[in-house]
Amino acid sequence: MIQINQNFRKLPGSYLFSEIARRVADYSREEPDAALIRLGIGDVTRPLIPAVTRAMAEAVAEMGTPGGFHGYGPEQGYDFLRQAIAAHDYQARGVQVEPGEIFVSDGAKSDCGNIGDVFGPDNVVAVCDPVYPVYVDSNAMAGRAGEYDPATGRWTRLVYMPCTRENGFVPAIPEGRADMIYLCFPNNPTGAMATRAQLKAWVDYANAHGSVILYDSAYEAFISQPELPHSIFEIEGARTCAIEFRSFSKTAGFTGTRCAYTVVPKELEREGVSLHALWNRRQTTKFNGVPYVVQRGAEAVYTPEGQEQVRETIAYYQRNAQVIRDGLEQAGLEVYGGVNAPYIWVRTPDGMDSWDFFDLLLRRAHVVTTPGAGFGPSGEGYIRVTAFGGAEEAVQAVERIQSVLK
Amino acid sequence: MIQINQNFRKLPGSYLFSEIARRVADYSREEPDAALIRLGIGDVTRPLIPAVTRAMAEAVAEMGTPGGFHGYGPEQGYDFLRQAIAAHDYQARGVQVEPGEIFVSDGAKSDCGNIGDVFGPDNVVAVCDPVYPVYVDSNAMAGRAGEYDPATGRWTRLVYMPCTRENGFVPAIPEGRADMIYLCFPNNPTGAMATRAQLKAWVDYANAHGSVILYDSAYEAFISQPELPHSIFEIEGARTCAIEFRSFSKTAGFTGTRCAYTVVPKELEREGVSLHALWNRRQTTKFNGVPYVVQRGAEAVYTPEGQEQVRETIAYYQRNAQVIRDGLEQAGLEVYGGVNAPYIWVRTPDGMDSWDFFDLLLRRAHVVTTPGAGFGPSGEGYIRVTAFGGAEEAVQAVERIQSVLK
Repeated sequence: MIQINQNFRKLPGSYLFSEIARRVADYSREEPDAALIRLGIGDVTRPLIPAVTRAMAEAVAEMGTPGGFHGYGPEQGYDFLRQAIAAHDYQARGVQVEPGEIFVSDGAKSDCGNIGDVFGPDNVVAVCDPVYPVYVDSNAMAGRAGEYDPATGRWTRLVYMPCTRENGFVPAIPEGRADMIYLCFPNNPTGAMATRAQLKAWVDYANAHGSVILYDSAYEAFISQPELPHSIFEIEGARTCAIEFRSFSKTAGFTGTRCAYTVVPKELEREGVSLHALWNRRQTTKFNGVPYVVQRGAEAVYTPEGQEQVRETIAYYQRNAQVIRDGLEQAGLEVYGGVNAPYIWVRTPDGMDSWDFFDLLLRRAHVVTTPGAGFGPSGEGYIRVTAFGGAEEAVQAVERIQSVLK
Repeated sequence: MIQINQNFRKLPGSYLFSEIARRVADYSREEPDAALIRLGIGDVTRPLIPAVTRAMAEAVAEMGTPGGFHGYGPEQGYDFLRQAIAAHDYQARGVQVEPGEIFVSDGAKSDCGNIGDVFGPDNVVAVCDPVYPVYVDSNAMAGRAGEYDPATGRWTRLVYMPCTRENGFVPAIPEGRADMIYLCFPNNPTGAMATRAQLKAWVDYANAHGSVILYDSAYEAFISQPELPHSIFEIEGARTCAIEFRSFSKTAGFTGTRCAYTVVPKELEREGVSLHALWNRRQTTKFNGVPYVVQRGAEAVYTPEGQEQVRETIAYYQRNAQVIRDGLEQAGLEVYGGVNAPYIWVRTPDGMDSWDFFDLLLRRAHVVTTPGAGFGPSGEGYIRVTAFGGAEEAVQAVERIQSVLK
């Protein structure tokens, strides 16, 4: 008799966004005329930029010709894209990352979820709290999280690093052991950003303890303050202790087009084994590369035209973030994030439960948000609002929330 | 100190196709003027059909408009594609598969590699020998394969089911325990096909023992004999014991476009747990769907125009298969497959070692093949030749081999 993976049995309830979708669907059935504004799931809404659609259209045409057809590409991505990434996202900022250290993939979610394949089952995993659920759930599936305690909302073997208004939503280094450390800056969900000095402390800890930092910088394009680091590899010593996840999803509107990349430095070793070689083996065995057409689209993001166009899109969302931030502050709410990130992290009024505040905003303001508690115990008492909607929606959502809270 | 996944240390040498690529690159450096014909890796060469490129071009244009933009899609695939698959690939053949049982993905390699996530580490895995290396390597990474023995080329905990000319390359049911059973028909690498009666025996075994059959039918479009089953779900009882992997790679030339799907029937349960629910949880946690543009391309395969065009492409490769089959037989070789599959499985002459025969064909005929030994111990004494090249190349390759073997 085959055995299932017993760790799956331990996973609580449904995935956060499925639960939100269910509540929204239920409400829409009750009130079919309610015009909802969706600022919940972190999905972009602006169209692909013209530079990208032109490159993709050309690549589609190529694929229809005998001479331009592309079959299997390299699992790690085409050189043209790896070179463009290395040059523009790293070398142009003075950061040493070679094309051969870049693994192009179909999504940061896939890479964050799959990276655990190369690590042993007994590692101690440290996550921010609140946290992007994929880090937790993928480790729970691999047996690294221990048991789930519904009373506390915590897994017994995970190290939770509280991110609170007291510490500016940047966690303190844990006192005990932490082998796999997930950090995400600009942060999802809190919108917080870490300074160079804060990241340096993490890098030093990881190098001293033989830990590996799994650094998710999917939102780096939203950093507006020039002194802040866009990559963990801007920090001295990171090349011997960090893996970085990046994505075109939020930078260039690729959530439905699917392209991301992961950087594993060649000098990153543990137990004398190259993690670059391990990840390469994992990817060549269980992945077959990103569509040629999509890689050509991603490459076009780095052309001068593409850079100008994505900057406009990012600026559009940044203006939304400011509208939401300012408007909710005016409504008397305590507001964080939204300056270097597309997420605004809002404290619920009067200590209200975050799912209750979610329901209130859904049912009274017709605005869909994400309850902070869905991201972990320390997210209780907050909701996440995204800046990825339309400009008019941002204004309208703020007005509605202001009038509900009057 | 972080621990790596110790199972990765056990993996022998490099992946088969990397080793072939290395030998070919070495030879090309020695003899830069040799015009190689590549019939090694199973990659298609014909362009995408017009129905697909038109649909993809339209979808790219849509993505560039505010109204037509698509962000995150359902992780399981868009309904339009799941419905087209269910209707054309299953219901049209009288097979009961619902759209909700279909999980659209970026590749059968990904799905075959990732499916192990939902199963426990102690299951006994049975694989055909020779076998597509992904089944073996992904289970070795998960610790299900035991130790690798370089002397025999076998893993200690895997059950190898020899596929030989004596059994027509369809394995006998193993005598001992087999929990996860990988079957692939039409077979890669042997090109063999199983009958309904042979598959029924496997389904009965799996239902009797609580095993799960992982059925890879990525090459079903190449079945030419009408009495043969295209899907494991054509076999009575399969819905309670089988998962099926399918791909657009070989059917519609999507090796560089990336779209596939996996069918997990809703009544498939083990330990009272729905495997459909487990796979859904795995995919929603560690995968974010296939590009919208690619799914529109895949949908177009099912239009009347698309069906006619892919039939032409398949027929083109089938003619190659016949040319290779007949030509190599005329060269005095013992030849299998190539009738219901794009692969021709060729016995080496005079008991020659399969890497030696590979090198002979590379260096004397300038034809790249795949050594059978790379697919497992019982592949020793064979090479795999693919029909995916150009029509003229097939003719030329056969002539060159004939002249070398004269």
